[in-house]
Amino acid sequence: MQTLRERLSRITDLGHAAAILEWDQETYMPAGAAEGRARQIATLRSLAHDILISEETGTLLEQAAPESAIDADLVRVTKKDYDKATRVPSSLIAELAEASGLSKGAWQEARENDEFSKFAPHLSKIVDLTIQHAEALGYEESPYDALLDQYEEGMTAAEVTRVFSELKADLIPLVSRIAESPATCDGIVHREFPRDTQWKLGMQVIEKMGYNTHYGRQDFSTHPFSTAFSITDVRITTRMEDRFFNPGFFGTLHEAGHAMYEQGIDMALEGSPLADGTSLGMHESQSRMWENLIGRSRPFWDYCFPHARKAFPDALGSETTDTFYKAINTVFPSLIRVEADEVTYNLHIMLRFELEQDMIAGKIRIQDLPEEWNDRMESWLGVRPSKDSDGVLQDIHWSLGAIGYFPTYALGNLMSTQLFNAAKKAIPDLDAKTSQGDFSALLDWLRTNVHQHGRRKTAGQILLDATGSELSSESWMHYAQSKFGELYGF
Amino acid sequence: MQTLRERLSRITDLGHAAAILEWDQETYMPAGAAEGRARQIATLRSLAHDILISEETGTLLEQAAPESAIDADLVRVTKKDYDKATRVPSSLIAELAEASGLSKGAWQEARENDEFSKFAPHLSKIVDLTIQHAEALGYEESPYDALLDQYEEGMTAAEVTRVFSELKADLIPLVSRIAESPATCDGIVHREFPRDTQWKLGMQVIEKMGYNTHYGRQDFSTHPFSTAFSITDVRITTRMEDRFFNPGFFGTLHEAGHAMYEQGIDMALEGSPLADGTSLGMHESQSRMWENLIGRSRPFWDYCFPHARKAFPDALGSETTDTFYKAINTVFPSLIRVEADEVTYNLHIMLRFELEQDMIAGKIRIQDLPEEWNDRMESWLGVRPSKDSDGVLQDIHWSLGAIGYFPTYALGNLMSTQLFNAAKKAIPDLDAKTSQGDFSALLDWLRTNVHQHGRRKTAGQILLDATGSELSSESWMHYAQSKFGELYGF
Repeated sequence: MQTLRERLSRITDLGHAAAILEWDQETYMPAGAAEGRARQIATLRSLAHDILISEETGTLLEQAAPESAIDADLVRVTKKDYDKATRVPSSLIAELAEASGLSKGAWQEARENDEFSKFAPHLSKIVDLTIQHAEALGYEESPYDALLDQYEEGMTAAEVTRVFSELKADLIPLVSRIAESPATCDGIVHREFPRDTQWKLGMQVIEKMGYNTHYGRQDFSTHPFSTAFSITDVRITTRMEDRFFNPGFFGTLHEAGHAMYEQGIDMALEGSPLADGTSLGMHESQSRMWENLIGRSRPFWDYCFPHARKAFPDALGSETTDTFYKAINTVFPSLIRVEADEVTYNLHIMLRFELEQDMIAGKIRIQDLPEEWNDRMESWLGVRPSKDSDGVLQDIHWSLGAIGYFPTYALGNLMSTQLFNAAKKAIPDLDAKTSQGDFSALLDWLRTNVHQHGRRKTAGQILLDATGSELSSESWMHYAQSKFGELYGF
Repeated sequence: MQTLRERLSRITDLGHAAAILEWDQETYMPAGAAEGRARQIATLRSLAHDILISEETGTLLEQAAPESAIDADLVRVTKKDYDKATRVPSSLIAELAEASGLSKGAWQEARENDEFSKFAPHLSKIVDLTIQHAEALGYEESPYDALLDQYEEGMTAAEVTRVFSELKADLIPLVSRIAESPATCDGIVHREFPRDTQWKLGMQVIEKMGYNTHYGRQDFSTHPFSTAFSITDVRITTRMEDRFFNPGFFGTLHEAGHAMYEQGIDMALEGSPLADGTSLGMHESQSRMWENLIGRSRPFWDYCFPHARKAFPDALGSETTDTFYKAINTVFPSLIRVEADEVTYNLHIMLRFELEQDMIAGKIRIQDLPEEWNDRMESWLGVRPSKDSDGVLQDIHWSLGAIGYFPTYALGNLMSTQLFNAAKKAIPDLDAKTSQGDFSALLDWLRTNVHQHGRRKTAGQILLDATGSELSSESWMHYAQSKFGELYGF
């Protein structure tokens, strides 16, 4: 057991070292260093992979005699990692890596020139290899299950389909109803917000929420992200726009939500593969909770607006909590997922999920994707891309071979309200606390019910233990209907 | 050969990854992350070590059939690395690591409380283990040779003794003569120099010298250093004082000198163990050349002073190139090595070299070190520490087990003037170019004669090929006598 623990700790250290190199790549690395850095990251990742799939690891896992409950979980979880990693032939991994390398470049070019046809053959190749990948990983019902399982353990296409169908049935009417209501004005958030003040307000708020800068830090990067090098070093990045309040502020809250999850993992798991978020969906539930359920809530702005007005007297001096709260919650059907509001966001995801399933099932020809995309956008959201860079070419994911990843964004939204409702039940005065800038009870509840477990519990188990229910769209739908019904006066 | 190349590239990547983790540790890492980071670095270093000393590496080195001159050098140099690494039992490496871990803490405490006796038993232990280390490494004449060879390949205690004796014979009288001359005034450098302006001037100057920020960057750290992650990513750090011009500016030039060395290595060596400075002495020759032979020269300030005066109008507005040049070249015998001027610096090193030799030869009792230290300081420099933190406890090196390291600082000074004289012969108008801020001819000469070779040539070979001479104190002594004779009017 001790030998196994040390071996797994070495694999974990290599993975974290690679993450540090990637963080540096996005924040401080000089431009000319790209090629060497890519090689170094690949070396670390492949060493970690080689140690994981080695016979010695297999034997140690077979023979391990757990000495504690944590040991037992460690063996159980790592056996799954080991099985998944050993099932896929290295030749296929190499092919996927090569194809996605080429495909990423082709996607960038296709997007710049709005030429889906240049990307199509690469996407075909990626889909072929991804199907092979799914076959190698194995599944019970559908190949898509195997893909999904990489990001959201135990989740199946059937369950996602069930939950998304329920959601869609209520969501499309809600979006239409909002679109028919008198528009709210979001001009306020497009005034002048000096970046250094945005930085200060963001830091002040996330530290108040519980992001611990003794064990983390924030830097700038082109695409914001959160990354953990250990439980004691969980970092976030942000980007800001001078004349748009939302991306910087809510992006900071979002990444801090991810980071607080990993800062809250039980220190007994430090340095082991268990010290990680349990799934992408559960991770997203934490980021979206702090970004939306707290950060875009009325009680939060009762607390925060006076600070924001003081920080940005020119932009907000003559505004009220009410006008500002409405501005940041404007719903506006739009083409680009990463700019979508809280309500329409899930539709962007469902669209991708349906198309991914069709691609993997061979039910759609790659060349027909743009048209299919645009038709669904028009029918669900009432907007139709006039060019593919605003449509099917907008996301990097498929070019990297990340198929089965998108659904986790929406699953995270659903989990966030399920968990939040349970927290509210446990903390009856949660809204009052939030309006006083006191987030400690909520963070404690999340630490206890979600964070501390790391990978010891699956997302499904966490949800069941914390809320008494399985994954469902009901609580999110109820939240959206009630919040936006009130905002849009119906 | 191809398999060997890939294996060595993997070892190099692991080492560079560890260096990135160390860089982060000194620049951006949050305080709470120290413990986990130490483990991660140890994991990477020990993996690299394990791959190097593995039987497979040995066999590959034995059977390698070089396909080029670079291959031949790669095999030759790596065989030496392999031999050195395999000669030392892992148990001894572990003992040394443990002892230096404890010793470093004890040294810090002893230094804070000025209690050498608290550090003495740790130093005894370190010396014992270091002797065992030397025995394991092997040597021809003296155990100290084996230690020296780790940092300055092929150098021997006998040769250092010969060169240092010559140097000391002339240097002590020079220091006395300066001490007897009318003092110059260095008050100018202790005026107000705003840090951000220091940063800008420093960056402007080192970029002009040839430090390429497309392949590097500067950050802040407590102790300035230079570090390379690849030929295309060579970074430096600096620190600044508001009311002292020298540490920031000359520190920046010093580290940029180190960095330009590694930026100048032949790209054909990228990713291999040959892509490194060939010895610590040769490295220091580059840093000291840019810091002192250029940076503290009259022609340099003919170019730079107008810029400095413009940058710092309050501090330098009424000064001249002449008064400033004198101020930055003030010689003042003092107790602390890292604050020593260009002339007295080498005496600090010689003192340490003599004591190290005596420790390894068992000619001095550890408890007598402080007294010995203070006596030599008084006799050579005319100053006597009143407390051990200003004497024998001032440097971290011994606590880490780095014995045999100090001499390379002075060897670097000697090499720097030898190389600089050769460059001057090749570039007759070098001073004129320097006074115009044109450093390209010098950098080209260094690239051709020193940098590009990486570890393909030893320091001795580089010196011989570039200057036609072996290591000697003559050129440095001549430089010091002429420069400071003129400055102090004798």
